[in-house]
Amino acid sequence: MIYRLNETHDVRLRSWVESANAHGTDFPIQNLPYGVFRRRGSIEDFRIGVAIGAQILDLRKAYAAGVFDDADNLTLAAIEACRSATLNALMALGSEAWQALRLALSRLLRDTSPAQVHLRQALLPQDEAEYTLPMTIGDYTDFYTSIHHATAVGKLFRPDAPLLPNYKWVPIGYHGRVSSIGVSGQQFRRPLGQTKSPERETPVWGPSKRLDFELEVGIVIGTGNALGEPVSIDDAESRIFGLCLLNDWSARDVQAWEYQPLGPFLAKNFATTVSPWIVTLDALTPYRVPFERPESDPAPLPYLDSPSVRSAGSIDVDLEVLIETARMQAENHGPERLARSNFRHSYWTAGQLVTHHTAGGCNLREGDLLGSGTQSGPQPNEAGSLLELTSGGRKPIVLANGEQRVFIEDGDTIVLRAWAEKAGFARIGFGEARGTVLAATHDASTSSTASAAAESKT
Amino acid sequence: MIYRLNETHDVRLRSWVESANAHGTDFPIQNLPYGVFRRRGSIEDFRIGVAIGAQILDLRKAYAAGVFDDADNLTLAAIEACRSATLNALMALGSEAWQALRLALSRLLRDTSPAQVHLRQALLPQDEAEYTLPMTIGDYTDFYTSIHHATAVGKLFRPDAPLLPNYKWVPIGYHGRVSSIGVSGQQFRRPLGQTKSPERETPVWGPSKRLDFELEVGIVIGTGNALGEPVSIDDAESRIFGLCLLNDWSARDVQAWEYQPLGPFLAKNFATTVSPWIVTLDALTPYRVPFERPESDPAPLPYLDSPSVRSAGSIDVDLEVLIETARMQAENHGPERLARSNFRHSYWTAGQLVTHHTAGGCNLREGDLLGSGTQSGPQPNEAGSLLELTSGGRKPIVLANGEQRVFIEDGDTIVLRAWAEKAGFARIGFGEARGTVLAATHDASTSSTASAAAESKT
Repeated sequence: MIYRLNETHDVRLRSWVESANAHGTDFPIQNLPYGVFRRRGSIEDFRIGVAIGAQILDLRKAYAAGVFDDADNLTLAAIEACRSATLNALMALGSEAWQALRLALSRLLRDTSPAQVHLRQALLPQDEAEYTLPMTIGDYTDFYTSIHHATAVGKLFRPDAPLLPNYKWVPIGYHGRVSSIGVSGQQFRRPLGQTKSPERETPVWGPSKRLDFELEVGIVIGTGNALGEPVSIDDAESRIFGLCLLNDWSARDVQAWEYQPLGPFLAKNFATTVSPWIVTLDALTPYRVPFERPESDPAPLPYLDSPSVRSAGSIDVDLEVLIETARMQAENHGPERLARSNFRHSYWTAGQLVTHHTAGGCNLREGDLLGSGTQSGPQPNEAGSLLELTSGGRKPIVLANGEQRVFIEDGDTIVLRAWAEKAGFARIGFGEARGTVLAATHDASTSSTASAAAESKT
Repeated sequence: MIYRLNETHDVRLRSWVESANAHGTDFPIQNLPYGVFRRRGSIEDFRIGVAIGAQILDLRKAYAAGVFDDADNLTLAAIEACRSATLNALMALGSEAWQALRLALSRLLRDTSPAQVHLRQALLPQDEAEYTLPMTIGDYTDFYTSIHHATAVGKLFRPDAPLLPNYKWVPIGYHGRVSSIGVSGQQFRRPLGQTKSPERETPVWGPSKRLDFELEVGIVIGTGNALGEPVSIDDAESRIFGLCLLNDWSARDVQAWEYQPLGPFLAKNFATTVSPWIVTLDALTPYRVPFERPESDPAPLPYLDSPSVRSAGSIDVDLEVLIETARMQAENHGPERLARSNFRHSYWTAGQLVTHHTAGGCNLREGDLLGSGTQSGPQPNEAGSLLELTSGGRKPIVLANGEQRVFIEDGDTIVLRAWAEKAGFARIGFGEARGTVLAATHDASTSSTASAAAESKT
């Protein structure tokens, strides 16, 4: 796969949507991410939109406005697929259709476009919108691609063998839970679960005391493959529609007790939060960087290796995670940053994940979601989870207002953000994935009584 | 939850569908399992049917025949939901609607029913039908509920710690892959994957050499729960629509290398085969048995315990797995039995699995599928996988025609069957879940070349 720049990436482009030209916007005309939205509080159907500056272009209205009447067949098929309430139909058309629609939208939104008179009525300000999941997700897989995270977490769970022998060979992943994936703004109760401390004989039942976030990149599959027909590494990236932010909330105490031998289960399936906007892989072309791996590490097996992976398999996306406690919210502080990292640190590329996933014969479908795994960087302050940032809960983080955190407390909001920037190109952003933890439910039959009964046995 | 017998369980009932009264049929009038079918080779829409003897009652045609015209509102809502191409709409109506429809169908199919003149045209012989998945599956979770299987497999993977400390406390489970679930008759290529033998430094890439089946019971969720609202143990069974057979095909050599620390991934996600018929939990009421656990084992934590679990939480369902090799097929042998087991050996009940799954806050949706995990019994010949039956591949099984097997070979068909029987009640069967393994794909880019290259490095 060759990553080609085209006119949509030109930094000189400006839009007739003025806010798209503002310094620091996540959504300049070079970005054009897709989401699914409606007017907040309305009972309208959800519909597909493209973020542009502080606005959303409603693609159903844009189509109805007649501005695609002269489009070629591929573009027409793409915009017609956007009359749906999810991105799946557009995804299924394949990467040429995605590129055609991107080019058409870029031209329609430029300050030179005569279409602006027809399209102004198709805009909705983002602060008047609400979002839902942009695609129907058939399966969600979470990977574990940060060697820094794997090593740091491994030290806490298995001090004797932090990095397992398979790590540098196999893109480690597991299947996650689709039903509890929500879009930014998700609120959920603190999960309950069994936990067992080393000094006790038996587990107890109750709310997790070690609730954590995981700063991840979501990889959204655009076109799938048939069962038994693996996707080659050179074809893998053409199957990816785009990237989003993903918070893989984790109950560390539940995880530690339940995860052997089949992996995390209740520790992860209570909630997963994604950002509403999918930044297309096409928009990310300028920020491609070589896939780098220490000389002393083994080369990927041939099915995961290719010249294009080596030359441009990784993507330079800055990541950051912030916290807004209930007190910060009450006092009208903005959120405070906990860590920064970068997707380029990933030990496996997005394309390698697609190829590995299908290599045994497994079929992917359009709309499937892959999580990158926590994207911790090489430095301690680049850790993508509290487990790492607090050294397993031993070193509290002191916030600017004097509050301390080892793990997430009730009322805390966690915000993930990301952006790509490069000299000579625009800065494009991902928006944010925001989620808030509520107090645990206190149903006597499943919580306090059970916990008390279990405690009384020990 | 109290398990009540009603008139639909009466062993004296006979049907006007003569084959339903034949000795040994899986589908007497006391069963009435649901599936989704159409005439084989046709391009008709798939539709919902009920198995009765050697026939299928087409519920769309039955409705159109007017035999439900005098039904009460609940029954009418249920039969109207059966005009869909999946069972999800019926499921969403809840257990009272399922019971109402079961009663109505039982009465319509009895030999005394005047409706038979209208319903004969709604029958299709099963040997003229083809099937598809009976429901849209949002998420698939596989559990690990046989302590005999867990111990036997544990010995092979971790000789030092076969049964992990959490096993008797936590119903161990993990999320599986939905996209590759197929209905009986599924054929799939032998999966490829990385494997590493202990005597090698590095892994190799190629077709799995240790391909196995897993004899499981599938638990089909009928009604789900909202995120953050756990299902109590007393409510859990009312959420289950029914049971089916499930073969969790497994590549043992891939599994051994990849499964740490996040569980099985490519080793399991290439195919999963279910039977076409869902035997309702209502049909299984007569075969309820007490949930038994050795006195020396800990009692389940309170959130997983209740008097009704103890008195009747388990279900006495006989299970069997058979093999039909390519040669047996060519020589027109029937399949040969490899093992028998019973679902009552499960260390956790179906209701406990539902409650545990939701206990942390995770939401289930109608149509979700839970696998019981391999149902090995206490005796060596009751093992539900070849891994166990051949002691990890060391002791070949000799078939009646002289062929030997340690793991599954290309062209082998594996057949799962199940039935419940009890003195004073009918014998009801599950039909079968049949799957055939084809030769691995030999795409140079992902298989032989890669394997050769990897081998040349060692």
